[in-house]
Amino acid sequence: MHEILLKHFTAIQPLNKSEIEAIDETMDIKSFSKDTLLLEAGQTSTAVFFVLEGIVRQYYLVDGTEKTSDFFTEGQWVLSTNNVMPGTTVNHFLECCTNCLLAVGNSQKGEALYNQFPDLATVSRKLMNTVFIEQQEKIKAYVTDTPEQRYLKLMTTHPELFQRIPQYQIASYIGVTPESLSRIRKRIAKK
Amino acid sequence: MHEILLKHFTAIQPLNKSEIEAIDETMDIKSFSKDTLLLEAGQTSTAVFFVLEGIVRQYYLVDGTEKTSDFFTEGQWVLSTNNVMPGTTVNHFLECCTNCLLAVGNSQKGEALYNQFPDLATVSRKLMNTVFIEQQEKIKAYVTDTPEQRYLKLMTTHPELFQRIPQYQIASYIGVTPESLSRIRKRIAKK
Repeated sequence: MHEILLKHFTAIQPLNKSEIEAIDETMDIKSFSKDTLLLEAGQTSTAVFFVLEGIVRQYYLVDGTEKTSDFFTEGQWVLSTNNVMPGTTVNHFLECCTNCLLAVGNSQKGEALYNQFPDLATVSRKLMNTVFIEQQEKIKAYVTDTPEQRYLKLMTTHPELFQRIPQYQIASYIGVTPESLSRIRKRIAKK
Repeated sequence: MHEILLKHFTAIQPLNKSEIEAIDETMDIKSFSKDTLLLEAGQTSTAVFFVLEGIVRQYYLVDGTEKTSDFFTEGQWVLSTNNVMPGTTVNHFLECCTNCLLAVGNSQKGEALYNQFPDLATVSRKLMNTVFIEQQEKIKAYVTDTPEQRYLKLMTTHPELFQRIPQYQIASYIGVTPESLSRIRKRIAKK
């Protein structure tokens, strides 16, 4: 098992040897080039991703415009609705913003694992709890934060993005035009 | 067990008699008057709510202004970050918008139940999956929808709100001022 993935699981709950082997059998470590689309709107893939290296972006396409909803970096799961509701189509895209090294799992094989190893079901439940908290924080930010606050928060939580992601994608994540983002950056620089 | 709660659980996974009894022992059915605050920012309560009747509102307080992030109606769980991360303080408020009948559980007692009845842990895991999908839909709406689209969506998903909730709370949920909401409603009425 890749060191980052093992560290991630161990932080939730220690795993024994057979659990580690069982996970390793259902997850592959794969490299993806920059700009690879891991998932497209309309697809029903059951693949689930865990970022070992690089940055994955989630976006929606609205009238031909990309609306960025999330960036995932090292140590984060990239979950989609189809992972928890197999067979449904997704309505977003997942793109590698950089060359990426990902652990690729399969949510259906995951379910089989939980039956075999009940402790892994507990790990999955605790993991979904963490995802719930992350999503609550995201929703809170949409409700309470100004674009400038969202920009400053992103600088704190994901400083690595700013060297590697085009400005228009950061602008779309913050919910403003690239021109407004320029003004926000100038305002922050003056402070 | 209250009929609505039983129907909710059964839709996820059939429960046996001892599981139903065990849940009943950890959840109380309680009435709350309109305007009751079920939870306040800064608290660490482990209470978890399921709506049997009425409407519960979640909001954040930003510089003295209420920013509504969600409405919960019949058949919905009202989960907070403290439910999945016991001991942490919440940063939002939960208020009864109407007189409410709620099933009140306790997330710590819930954890004890999962150890005793592994199938209930599976129910909880599936329930968190559903919550994940609801949250993804909410995040998508913030990213892709205009205030007018958000208003129309709320009319479709929660028509019962419009007779019972003050306009300023609906405006805050949509992310506009009450004056803007008036203009949106006039525009929709003309169509």
